[in-house]
Amino acid sequence: MNALGDSRLEGGLAILDPDHTALLKALDETFTRWALDVGAREICPPPLYAVADLKKFDVYVNFPHLSLVAGPLQVTRNLGPDDGRFRPDQLASVNLGLPTATCFGAYLFFEGRQVSTATLVTLVNRCFRGEDHFDGLRRLLSFQMREIVALGSYVHTQYILTYFSGKIEKFCHALSLKFVKEAATDPFFERGGARALLQGMQAVKHEFQVDDLAIASVNTHRNFFGERCRITTDSDGGLAFTSCVAFGLERWVSVLTNRYGSAERALEEVRRAASQLPPA
Amino acid sequence: MNALGDSRLEGGLAILDPDHTALLKALDETFTRWALDVGAREICPPPLYAVADLKKFDVYVNFPHLSLVAGPLQVTRNLGPDDGRFRPDQLASVNLGLPTATCFGAYLFFEGRQVSTATLVTLVNRCFRGEDHFDGLRRLLSFQMREIVALGSYVHTQYILTYFSGKIEKFCHALSLKFVKEAATDPFFERGGARALLQGMQAVKHEFQVDDLAIASVNTHRNFFGERCRITTDSDGGLAFTSCVAFGLERWVSVLTNRYGSAERALEEVRRAASQLPPA
Repeated sequence: MNALGDSRLEGGLAILDPDHTALLKALDETFTRWALDVGAREICPPPLYAVADLKKFDVYVNFPHLSLVAGPLQVTRNLGPDDGRFRPDQLASVNLGLPTATCFGAYLFFEGRQVSTATLVTLVNRCFRGEDHFDGLRRLLSFQMREIVALGSYVHTQYILTYFSGKIEKFCHALSLKFVKEAATDPFFERGGARALLQGMQAVKHEFQVDDLAIASVNTHRNFFGERCRITTDSDGGLAFTSCVAFGLERWVSVLTNRYGSAERALEEVRRAASQLPPA
Repeated sequence: MNALGDSRLEGGLAILDPDHTALLKALDETFTRWALDVGAREICPPPLYAVADLKKFDVYVNFPHLSLVAGPLQVTRNLGPDDGRFRPDQLASVNLGLPTATCFGAYLFFEGRQVSTATLVTLVNRCFRGEDHFDGLRRLLSFQMREIVALGSYVHTQYILTYFSGKIEKFCHALSLKFVKEAATDPFFERGGARALLQGMQAVKHEFQVDDLAIASVNTHRNFFGERCRITTDSDGGLAFTSCVAFGLERWVSVLTNRYGSAERALEEVRRAASQLPPA
């Protein structure tokens, strides 16, 4: 048995064995509980969107190299795949996109709506990134990302990041996980003069890294998503600000399994650490 | 507010609001608990496979009209989507397939392995079907299917179907859901003389239908999947038999919300009914 036990891992796609599944679920329940404890409601997004919806977030400008797209087959001329792949001309249409991040579902959920200035939701999704190489559970083609998304006033979005940064730090300490918190570049803000200037004034993304791997991040989007999805606040009708806290679940599984030698042992430690953290 | 509350539903893709999300999660936890209570272990599959893996199950022979396929973009010539879709020749490769059912992950998990004669796993996945029309939560492009999959001896696979059929019937009674149990055709066995003959001798699929909608099914595959994935049993090294019990989670949400007028009320009823059922 390797470090992944009986999990099947091929081409960046993992089928997790029972011990790794239990660990992933316990982590997800822990992060979800943190969010619910401070009043978040959970919503449930699909792992597939209309290309036109994802385009609103500039994903095909900023992440064309990571983006996977999908569509139905042309049945009339379908002759099956050849050597493990279909020819592009066997597709009837390519109008669907697989998301690179979970939080898109939150902005689309609130699209065209007015929200309170202190809105908080949590959601988990399957995400997809066509990386140029894959590496165990550290870098997968398809993985799970839990997010906690704040919408409303700028102060609220910043408070949420501060609060959950504190939770992540305490949880890492309780798990004896050595981490560094690093400012990172957010590809959403890499292009365009105004946004680049904004980033120069204030880091918009911080990553929590363990073993050189980002296992969580906190992200400020100003009103980028509020604008793209026409989300307004009920205070003055202005565009909502947003921020998000993201947890790469398989990455947590990976670093904890390394830290504790097995997923089973890591699960015990997660349960112990989660119960030690003070409630909100 | 419509019957789906604030859920966003477009093009067969749903973002469930908090009440519908809570109901779906409670249902999934109930079915999972039933499986764990009789010794199942949970595994976690990806919502995307190599086309070559799905081809093993004849999906591109039996379900080409329902199948969605995916791949990365050709970045060098990427000019973004036009009118909500990419041209097929903008794809670099089409080597990935989105699954139409959850249980494929179980057979791939055990591919090439030997299992005990009474193996039981449970798993949930996002599934995808390119239907010719969509209808609320009754018929979605992307939905969640919980499955309980038995592998091993033929007797074991049949016992599991009988056992969970009983659980489903009791649960429906406790929820005051009127259902019919109908023999149905299984597309895996529609083609080919031997399989058609087999189906003539014995119904291989039964559906539990509420409001003319199949919300659960029990399925016998003989050793079709055992053969395709070279899964053998530890008794005599012969090919494993398999069977599965499938729950369409959004469909349960749909019929229960209709039955009780709101997802919130339906959630209370699910909790009550689940606690009334005798343990295994």
